[in-house]
Amino acid sequence: MTGAAGRVSPLEANRFTAADLDRLPGTRRRLLERRRAVLGESAPLLYRRPVHPVRGEGAWLRDADGTRYLDMYNNVAGVGHCHPRVVDAVSRQVATLNTHIRYLHDTIVGYAEDLLSTFPAEFAEVAFTCTGSEANDLAVRLAWQVTGQRGVIVTESAYHGGTAVAAACSPSVRGPRPDWVRVVAAPDRRAGGDTGARFAAEVAEQIARLRRDGIGFAALLVDTVFSSDGIHPDPAGYLASVTDVVRAAGGLFVADEVQPGFGRLGHGMWGFQRHAVVPDLVTLGKPMAAGMPVAAVVATGAVAAGADVPYFNTFGGNPVSMAAAQAVLDIIRDEDLVTNSHERGEQLRAGLRALRPEHPCLADIRGAGLFTGVEFGRAGVADPVTAAAVVNGMRERGVLASTAGAHGAVLKLRPPLPVTAADIGYFLDVTAEVLAEVAAS
Amino acid sequence: MTGAAGRVSPLEANRFTAADLDRLPGTRRRLLERRRAVLGESAPLLYRRPVHPVRGEGAWLRDADGTRYLDMYNNVAGVGHCHPRVVDAVSRQVATLNTHIRYLHDTIVGYAEDLLSTFPAEFAEVAFTCTGSEANDLAVRLAWQVTGQRGVIVTESAYHGGTAVAAACSPSVRGPRPDWVRVVAAPDRRAGGDTGARFAAEVAEQIARLRRDGIGFAALLVDTVFSSDGIHPDPAGYLASVTDVVRAAGGLFVADEVQPGFGRLGHGMWGFQRHAVVPDLVTLGKPMAAGMPVAAVVATGAVAAGADVPYFNTFGGNPVSMAAAQAVLDIIRDEDLVTNSHERGEQLRAGLRALRPEHPCLADIRGAGLFTGVEFGRAGVADPVTAAAVVNGMRERGVLASTAGAHGAVLKLRPPLPVTAADIGYFLDVTAEVLAEVAAS
Repeated sequence: MTGAAGRVSPLEANRFTAADLDRLPGTRRRLLERRRAVLGESAPLLYRRPVHPVRGEGAWLRDADGTRYLDMYNNVAGVGHCHPRVVDAVSRQVATLNTHIRYLHDTIVGYAEDLLSTFPAEFAEVAFTCTGSEANDLAVRLAWQVTGQRGVIVTESAYHGGTAVAAACSPSVRGPRPDWVRVVAAPDRRAGGDTGARFAAEVAEQIARLRRDGIGFAALLVDTVFSSDGIHPDPAGYLASVTDVVRAAGGLFVADEVQPGFGRLGHGMWGFQRHAVVPDLVTLGKPMAAGMPVAAVVATGAVAAGADVPYFNTFGGNPVSMAAAQAVLDIIRDEDLVTNSHERGEQLRAGLRALRPEHPCLADIRGAGLFTGVEFGRAGVADPVTAAAVVNGMRERGVLASTAGAHGAVLKLRPPLPVTAADIGYFLDVTAEVLAEVAAS
Repeated sequence: MTGAAGRVSPLEANRFTAADLDRLPGTRRRLLERRRAVLGESAPLLYRRPVHPVRGEGAWLRDADGTRYLDMYNNVAGVGHCHPRVVDAVSRQVATLNTHIRYLHDTIVGYAEDLLSTFPAEFAEVAFTCTGSEANDLAVRLAWQVTGQRGVIVTESAYHGGTAVAAACSPSVRGPRPDWVRVVAAPDRRAGGDTGARFAAEVAEQIARLRRDGIGFAALLVDTVFSSDGIHPDPAGYLASVTDVVRAAGGLFVADEVQPGFGRLGHGMWGFQRHAVVPDLVTLGKPMAAGMPVAAVVATGAVAAGADVPYFNTFGGNPVSMAAAQAVLDIIRDEDLVTNSHERGEQLRAGLRALRPEHPCLADIRGAGLFTGVEFGRAGVADPVTAAAVVNGMRERGVLASTAGAHGAVLKLRPPLPVTAADIGYFLDVTAEVLAEVAAS
């Protein structure tokens, strides 16, 4: 019915295919065959030998066969798998009351206030959805209504979600683009010159084209660390110029914080803060409630006052979701996870850089906090084959990771924020082994 | 930022407005003012005096002030509020593992198999989403791809969700319709003649117009009990003719079971079964997992084989969601809730009909199982004012209900399925009191 979301590699390069079936032990093969019968091709699995986790704790997953995996990939479990405070909050609330937002409830009000307190003063209102896809879909509807224009500019390998409109705004999803979606190159510092000025000039050119084509310009929609484009954090501050260009053109700057948000980048709570800019709309998701389907659109007072998009979400902002989200926010602060994100991220990248002299296939190492991209390539040519070999090699040695970027050549590392110094040490040891093995093969 | 989803009355007629603020006690007023500050107008409340539930059990909610309410409205809690088996399933799974469908997991496979076993043999595959909105959005994308055409036909007051595409397919949501959405009247048996033939003829006419306009016909998307159109169940079987028309035209019949599904109509699990038809795609939601955000698209083997829409949903089909959904399916069977839905629904409508001679404002009483519509009007003119007065009167006497239909003149009754004979008796007593009071005012 449905197929892999990725255009090529981020999900394809290291995914399981039918050709790998014979490699699996009998019980796992039978589960996989039953799975294919009812889910079809709609749910591709990671790794040539899929994992079958049955237990999660902190940064670790345990497989049905007893193997332990260091999870270097899942940011939904941003505060760690099965955090006791999340478990407690969800278990209590689900036993007490779970209903919708047509009734008064305290937790949604307290959480919305607390969430807004982590934003710059310009932000005033929150609308809750269940997924980042729904949040980006609603943000586009809001931008259309506020500006009265239609054009949305995104980056070349962006992923903003799976609704019809969010998928249209996601060049990493295969399929034709409607004419109101325009694409610019991701801001890659390696292209030389001033990264921010170059990005702003590209966006300005697409704004001019949208106007010339009679479509008009509604919004720039970007992930503030360009996750699916291969992770481009540097230099911090480079989004300032493009923000000015968007404002001057009367459009909205929509910051997609679904992946970079909630302390992931080790600098405040939000990716846009590293660039010292103030977006008009911010979308949130993934780690927001540790696996409960919770997401949101946060708007400045100016946008909120000017917009009136009819919207209701039956499950959005329900008491169980809000209890989980509040627990996550409390844990991030109480355990000082933003600091840990910064420190462990620095440790990780320093360790990876130390491997570079011996492994020239490590073409680039970049990141912020606990979001790191390791690009494989030689002489400027991306190498997705090595990236996929490394990801599958790590899986065989008890480390879970995946890939990103236009060619799937970027190792994407995004562990739960409470990952320890010892965990990072373990990861670096495994990486050294895998790189040696891949080099020898 | 966002506003009420309803075009006019279903949510407007009985919703709280700022003018009602002074009626509230101080603590509730303060919570409400804080709520408006952070959620804006985006989350309208039901009732002129909003309720503030803090505890749910079975068909009952308890307010912060101690008042108990019989819940005659919420089908998300289809198996009853805080059912112990749902609480247990969620609490255990959230403490054990919650991750995504890129890893093998047993529960999603077992649940998908179990869910499909409740469908006719033609159905073969499931794709999980988090909301009914996402399910309908994906169903439209699938219909577009499978048929290569664009036109979608819906009924005049339908509600199919809140994504850009689902809202476009929802005439009950205010805003302009794109040219690929065409609207037909809901099949109302009171219009005379053969309800099914009339509905099929209207759809055939819109198919012809879509073709003439060069848009082509992709799908008929209808709620199988026309919930938002005011609930139109009779005569059972009337959807057969239109199914033939849709098939002959090469389009897909998409059955939206978000409201009528999971035993609500007291006849099998699905609304389309009352009409003895087999849709091409079926969308599910609301009661599917007792408040966990879980929804799905179910496809026939033919459609699944012909479609390949790129799709991924981070939270869709996660272990906690699947554990909750499995518990719901088990409870419906083990407690024989479909039979209870049929029997209590008959009791409810017989009791309401007994009130008719004394209350001519009860223009029509219709329903199937525990989904009942009571239309208020006189001499063929809808009376939303009386409907809103009745809903608010019931709220003051400890019964929660709401309204539906093009004019908001239909009292919408949709209690949790385990509602008892005594609960229905209590509801009928309250109804008699409220009708007498409204008649006297």
